[in-house]
Amino acid sequence: MEAPEGFKFSAVECGIKYENRFDLGLIYCEFPGVAWGVFTKNSVKAAPVLLGKKIIKSEVHRAIVVNSGNANACTGQEGLEDAKRIINDLAEHLKVSEKEVLPASTGVIGERLPVNKILPKLKDLVEGLSPLRIEDFAKAIMTTDTKPKISYREVNGIKVLGIAKGAGMIAPNMATMLAFILTDGVFQKETIKKLLPKFTEESFNRITIDGDTSTNDTVYLVSSNRKEVKDYQELKQAILDVMKELAYKIVEDGEGVTKVIRIVIKGAKTKKHAKELAHAVANSPLVKTAFYGADPNWGRLFSAMGKTGIEFAFDKVEVYLNGVCWVNNLKTCASEEELKKLMENKDQELIIKLKEGRQSYEVLTGDLTEKYIEINAMYRS
Amino acid sequence: MEAPEGFKFSAVECGIKYENRFDLGLIYCEFPGVAWGVFTKNSVKAAPVLLGKKIIKSEVHRAIVVNSGNANACTGQEGLEDAKRIINDLAEHLKVSEKEVLPASTGVIGERLPVNKILPKLKDLVEGLSPLRIEDFAKAIMTTDTKPKISYREVNGIKVLGIAKGAGMIAPNMATMLAFILTDGVFQKETIKKLLPKFTEESFNRITIDGDTSTNDTVYLVSSNRKEVKDYQELKQAILDVMKELAYKIVEDGEGVTKVIRIVIKGAKTKKHAKELAHAVANSPLVKTAFYGADPNWGRLFSAMGKTGIEFAFDKVEVYLNGVCWVNNLKTCASEEELKKLMENKDQELIIKLKEGRQSYEVLTGDLTEKYIEINAMYRS
Repeated sequence: MEAPEGFKFSAVECGIKYENRFDLGLIYCEFPGVAWGVFTKNSVKAAPVLLGKKIIKSEVHRAIVVNSGNANACTGQEGLEDAKRIINDLAEHLKVSEKEVLPASTGVIGERLPVNKILPKLKDLVEGLSPLRIEDFAKAIMTTDTKPKISYREVNGIKVLGIAKGAGMIAPNMATMLAFILTDGVFQKETIKKLLPKFTEESFNRITIDGDTSTNDTVYLVSSNRKEVKDYQELKQAILDVMKELAYKIVEDGEGVTKVIRIVIKGAKTKKHAKELAHAVANSPLVKTAFYGADPNWGRLFSAMGKTGIEFAFDKVEVYLNGVCWVNNLKTCASEEELKKLMENKDQELIIKLKEGRQSYEVLTGDLTEKYIEINAMYRS
Repeated sequence: MEAPEGFKFSAVECGIKYENRFDLGLIYCEFPGVAWGVFTKNSVKAAPVLLGKKIIKSEVHRAIVVNSGNANACTGQEGLEDAKRIINDLAEHLKVSEKEVLPASTGVIGERLPVNKILPKLKDLVEGLSPLRIEDFAKAIMTTDTKPKISYREVNGIKVLGIAKGAGMIAPNMATMLAFILTDGVFQKETIKKLLPKFTEESFNRITIDGDTSTNDTVYLVSSNRKEVKDYQELKQAILDVMKELAYKIVEDGEGVTKVIRIVIKGAKTKKHAKELAHAVANSPLVKTAFYGADPNWGRLFSAMGKTGIEFAFDKVEVYLNGVCWVNNLKTCASEEELKKLMENKDQELIIKLKEGRQSYEVLTGDLTEKYIEINAMYRS
């Protein structure tokens, strides 16, 4: 793994909320980069989201600054001013325009960002920049994540690097997650602008932990525009792969998650039905706890699908668990023992065939465990 | 508490799923009763729901037979035949028409009902009928409930008795819950038919445990038509009170629940907004775990409301916790210590004033605890 050409990384400890760990990170692009962003659909948007949506419209971008421990959300006009001060000071240190610095924050909502702790550290942050400090940056953006999330691909000498944080509420629209996708392959801004929402829909919007969506979700894609691209098809696939891999890592490290469950609805009448049914199963606490307990109780799948109100011939449905027929014509078609054993795997694949039409939809979710409760009852996120 | 005139109750042990406890209950009306029913909106409907929806159209009703431990859902044509056999045999023992016997079931989905265990017990069930066995019946319909749920009112000598079971998934439409409301006040069938859906909307549809809805939800209201009613207004209020009290008891005894939270959205632009926002807050695992942990983290309320996508001036919102101002203009307006102490109460009232319009909506929910996970990971419900 190597940083795509032109990118440098840094991280410092500000003590925003956590002590003795990085909580402010910086990505810097030595060359004028082109970028686009996708933001939360939550109607309560954090200050960095409101600012980011404006700044992303600039022609070129040179930096992304991210803090953890405080979301700078529900902080009103003061919160906007706080975010601006950090951007302005940082732009000065970097000797770039403040219109080229993109912000992101994650952490507790409703508390002022302690700018007095952050501003004095910006000089160190800039001086610490290095192409080798990818992992330090990845650590600086973590909240309840238990490990940094990095994904990497190289195609024809062009590099794609993705760094993300996730953990809690991750649905229906990539909640409390930040992801930064960097490449050195040449892109037009217009191309990135089309690409990113489409790929986000295929990756980060296909995962769910607890049905909650955050105020701060942000995905930035930045190219340093250093390397000619021979095969855009391959490069785009690499970018999508990186995003999908990060999405998987987010679920895998979801709060309290012990199993990653891929839920695939096939043969639905419409795409809308397929999506709604997949999310109903993926978000059902009863389905999630059944996977946790390795209890092959398929009634919960049917009940979860039925609660959407979507009519389907449920007596015709076929369900496959990790490739093994689980339910057919309302009958269990494998032994309880075999199914229980299958449900102990870390990776679970659930294919539900409706036989109503030709539409399908896929979503990733995690199981629901006591650990999720512990984290969220005790930790102020 | 006394049974409304004409009603008798019974319960037997069949060993359907549980051993050494009542799991089959009977309510019998000595006189031709008038009844109506409200059923689950889940598109996957259990056999007793499909049958109940037909039988409820009869002119008179004389009995309700309920089993726990098996939902007789996702059991296809065979499941319908199983339910019919029980109804037919029971009607013979009771010497009433099979069109006068209403069914209900609750428990695990996707397994055949063990009729061979039930049929031999019907004679005992009928012989055991007594106006005094209300609690035995209430116990027979329990699944993960920790206690029987009974509510009672008397107005001008007219009795209203309600018996319910709840526990798990209770939203958005009164999921995995059964409730039987009995009165001896004279009613026209047409009146009950109008009343019951309206009162259900005001009571059982206003509670939520985990956002899941079951295949078996059923509410029956039966009158033995023995007593003239002087004041229908008062009697109707008593019926609604009984239904609301049962709804409260269901949340209170929700799986793993330690706190009952009344969430009131006020000043919304439309009723639809108010309802959607109330449910978003009530179903948010992050809000529910914050109440469990007594963590006055109001950011989670705002994030939960925002994820609906409904636009509102969140900087104007006022939040009251148990009568104390909690948030105003995005500022906490009480001490952390005081708020933490308030959040330790068993009963919580959260009033969220939007100041956008005049519509309001109220919903009851419970907190989310490790116990919920334990019950649902280990218990096949």
